[in-house]
Amino acid sequence: MGRVVVEVMPKPEILDPQGKAISQSLERSGVSGFDVRQGKRFELTIHEEITPEVLEQVKQVAQDLLSNPVIEDVVGVYEVTGDAQ
Amino acid sequence: MGRVVVEVMPKPEILDPQGKAISQSLERSGVSGFDVRQGKRFELTIHEEITPEVLEQVKQVAQDLLSNPVIEDVVGVYEVTGDAQ
Repeated sequence: MGRVVVEVMPKPEILDPQGKAISQSLERSGVSGFDVRQGKRFELTIHEEITPEVLEQVKQVAQDLLSNPVIEDVVGVYEVTGDAQ
Repeated sequence: MGRVVVEVMPKPEILDPQGKAISQSLERSGVSGFDVRQGKRFELTIHEEITPEVLEQVKQVAQDLLSNPVIEDVVGVYEVTGDAQ
């Protein structure tokens, strides 16, 4: 059993309305100088040992099912140890 | 100028319908044995040097504005170097 984290972000050139909205709400709360981009973080609990083949399969799943390649990039796929966070 | 990543996940005891839906769609695509939980990944571009004080401010922003403490945990706040991903 193991856990793999997959990180997905909007492509840099893509408009990120959610991130913009957060930056503006930070500004209104008196926190200026922060530009925010929001993406997704997945934790996959996998019921077998994390071999290089399994990690490769996760990368494929990340590309095909966990992200939209038109507007998003998979920016991280790595094994994590310890409890689910 | 620096960049800080903030990672937010649903609390382990909270039902994660989005994660469940993804696990089921993986199952239908023939990828079994994966339990998925979905959270958020923020990239903050900050227009000043990332000092310990700035990092502390980001942690506060993460608690107060980027997560809902009732159902979510902030599981990571760390500086990253290199280009926006």
